[in-house]
Amino acid sequence: MQYHHITTDLADGVMTLTLNRPERLNAFTQAMLDEMIATFDAADADDDVRAIILTGAGRGFCAGVDLDDPNAFTAAKVDPKTRDAATWNDPANRDMGGVLALRIFNCLKPVIAAVNGPAVGIGATMQLPMDIRIASETARFGFVFARRGIVPEAASSWFLPRLVGMSQALEWCYSGRVFGADEAHAGGLVRSVHAPDDLLPAARAIAQEIADNTAPVSIALTRQMMWRMAGADHPMQAHRIDSRAIAARSSMADADEGVASFLEKRAPAFPDRVSRDMPGFYPWWTEPGWLDEEEK
Amino acid sequence: MQYHHITTDLADGVMTLTLNRPERLNAFTQAMLDEMIATFDAADADDDVRAIILTGAGRGFCAGVDLDDPNAFTAAKVDPKTRDAATWNDPANRDMGGVLALRIFNCLKPVIAAVNGPAVGIGATMQLPMDIRIASETARFGFVFARRGIVPEAASSWFLPRLVGMSQALEWCYSGRVFGADEAHAGGLVRSVHAPDDLLPAARAIAQEIADNTAPVSIALTRQMMWRMAGADHPMQAHRIDSRAIAARSSMADADEGVASFLEKRAPAFPDRVSRDMPGFYPWWTEPGWLDEEEK
Amino acid sequence: MQYHHITTDLADGVMTLTLNRPERLNAFTQAMLDEMIATFDAADADDDVRAIILTGAGRGFCAGVDLDDPNAFTAAKVDPKTRDAATWNDPANRDMGGVLALRIFNCLKPVIAAVNGPAVGIGATMQLPMDIRIASETARFGFVFARRGIVPEAASSWFLPRLVGMSQALEWCYSGRVFGADEAHAGGLVRSVHAPDDLLPAARAIAQEIADNTAPVSIALTRQMMWRMAGADHPMQAHRIDSRAIAARSSMADADEGVASFLEKRAPAFPDRVSRDMPGFYPWWTEPGWLDEEEK
Repeated sequence: MQYHHITTDLADGVMTLTLNRPERLNAFTQAMLDEMIATFDAADADDDVRAIILTGAGRGFCAGVDLDDPNAFTAAKVDPKTRDAATWNDPANRDMGGVLALRIFNCLKPVIAAVNGPAVGIGATMQLPMDIRIASETARFGFVFARRGIVPEAASSWFLPRLVGMSQALEWCYSGRVFGADEAHAGGLVRSVHAPDDLLPAARAIAQEIADNTAPVSIALTRQMMWRMAGADHPMQAHRIDSRAIAARSSMADADEGVASFLEKRAPAFPDRVSRDMPGFYPWWTEPGWLDEEEK
Repeated sequence: MQYHHITTDLADGVMTLTLNRPERLNAFTQAMLDEMIATFDAADADDDVRAIILTGAGRGFCAGVDLDDPNAFTAAKVDPKTRDAATWNDPANRDMGGVLALRIFNCLKPVIAAVNGPAVGIGATMQLPMDIRIASETARFGFVFARRGIVPEAASSWFLPRLVGMSQALEWCYSGRVFGADEAHAGGLVRSVHAPDDLLPAARAIAQEIADNTAPVSIALTRQMMWRMAGADHPMQAHRIDSRAIAARSSMADADEGVASFLEKRAPAFPDRVSRDMPGFYPWWTEPGWLDEEEK
Repeated sequence: MQYHHITTDLADGVMTLTLNRPERLNAFTQAMLDEMIATFDAADADDDVRAIILTGAGRGFCAGVDLDDPNAFTAAKVDPKTRDAATWNDPANRDMGGVLALRIFNCLKPVIAAVNGPAVGIGATMQLPMDIRIASETARFGFVFARRGIVPEAASSWFLPRLVGMSQALEWCYSGRVFGADEAHAGGLVRSVHAPDDLLPAARAIAQEIADNTAPVSIALTRQMMWRMAGADHPMQAHRIDSRAIAARSSMADADEGVASFLEKRAPAFPDRVSRDMPGFYPWWTEPGWLDEEEK
């Protein structure tokens, strides 16, 4: 697949996805969405990809939806006052940011945002289903939706309070202010702040530590266990799944290698692969669709 | 409505609700509850109210339930050992703090607590469904319930761990200690600490930034989206709602004004009003009653 | 019951459970699990136990599952690729850590982890359902599962993100790194860091403040209310339970003593006991089993 609005690069087990419309501060388009989803699909299917870094080309990360892109917003207007279920249930109205967020939520590889510059609107919310966010000193963030007359999207009402707490989430979304990397760090949105030239090396170091030391199938299971138990009512739901995962993984070659490499004080060489060795109980969930039966 | 235990004031789009029994450190009464609920109802219905500040008159915020108020506790004693469902299901036993907390949970305007002095018992728990808490250096907080032989109320077992984490929530409720503004800040209960004279100006500045820059309907939707997705199991639930909200809001006048004011670098003048312009899919939930059918 | 892999001690209302295989850094065994569960059962049934401290003998806290213990892992190998439900539903495959975590989740007394040294694997995850964690400067933590080819267990996918946030939880589990007390403190895993000799006195001070000042039945209800509402969808669920708890507790002797001791400015002497005075609506939940009906 030839990409036009992103570039991808694979080196040392790390896929780097770069939003690549630098002349537009990497403003988001329908094509960019399609290309990002294709990249996540490819990364999940490729055992050579152990982690994914997402960053922006040039001085921006992503300046929000490109207002000049004819497909960037819902094409058709709706009657906002209608109570007709068919209007609201129409999958044509699905928010682009949410489609991306749910794809990242389902990813089997760790995803690291390396926020190199302004990240506004969907440029901020697309980061939330990623696992770790680090920022350049030049990064800026804005949940600006209420200043534009719209609302936070990309399922951010689910993700943002879980990352930064309810009060911080509300304050950023209520004010719609654009704020810097230090405030993002203090508020828990990013893990660390780096000089611009140190940003990608720092992201690669995080990815490399994972790639060098851990079992890919273990990481894929861990990612889905953690994100999916975030909404579970009772720890028994986690116990059911991790019991199965421990039983399965303890019976596979990786567990022998994990113990052996530990006892021999050497780097592990795990044989199991995500593409062929996910346990038989995976996936353990039924993924909700746009509409559940009861809502149709 | 003539209020006896509170005062209200509306200026520059900000409603200030002041607990007003300063000779009793604003101890909580049934009348105060009724008047607070009437104020939240009025604020939600009044498009001139863009945000609500809640504070206390005199040197206290709220010293807890007034032990001298004959209606302040459940009037009738119950048999605590009974297993009879009718006793426990009796709506006469509904906790006053919870009735207030659920009303605030349903509010359509941002709510800011400006904690000017001691806030103990319900004076502490009533703050939890508010969006942002700021404190004077003279503020004090106490989840003192276990020292009085009762338990945390006002649905605080739902709210407090979501605001400050499980361990901090438990430690404050287990000890029942009264603690100062600095500990409240360090523990994540309040956003910032101010000199006494700076407290209300700081609260007003937060409110004013919202009122000056954002669309009221966007804020009302954002408030309900964030609080209600806090308990949702899966981000698809958020995607369903924010897709509808983006589709509706993008088709309304506010979205045009949001983009125009941004491109023209001027303050926005949003035309849509909460009283008449909430989208047709709102409310998207069925509010749970005191008892669901299955529990009757 | 004679214990072989732990010791217990009761003094001043505080039960101290010490993992006691110092020559093995208190590595976890099936016997240790059985003895820990027996201790939690005894502590819940004993009104003289007001709080539980958990620590390790010697220089370690718990170095993970003892790889030499023949019963420490699932004895039988499973076919990891099978899609046969009977394999995955087999209770013989229940993870030991999860059995322990769920027992602690159900405890009626506050549980404090005093982490005196290395705490790795189940030594780290067993702490998560405890209420408060404090660490010695010599403590070390490691969610090392992915380095061993397995996955985080003990229902930690439910507990860990609720304690430290999703991103911190994922980063520790992705890297599998062993880290020190300062990083655990900065990341929110432990509440405070102490010189080695100050660790147990600090834990006892936390426990003593609870024992001296609060009503045991109030604490037992508070513990279950907080942990169980962590997964509740809507604050109405909390309002239903705390209304009942306030009605019940206000009708019991403890509430009179709570008010009287407060007004008389003296230490309280609460008469109600956990063993006989839990209200009739307790337990208000149906505990989920290993398999719900629908999953069989």
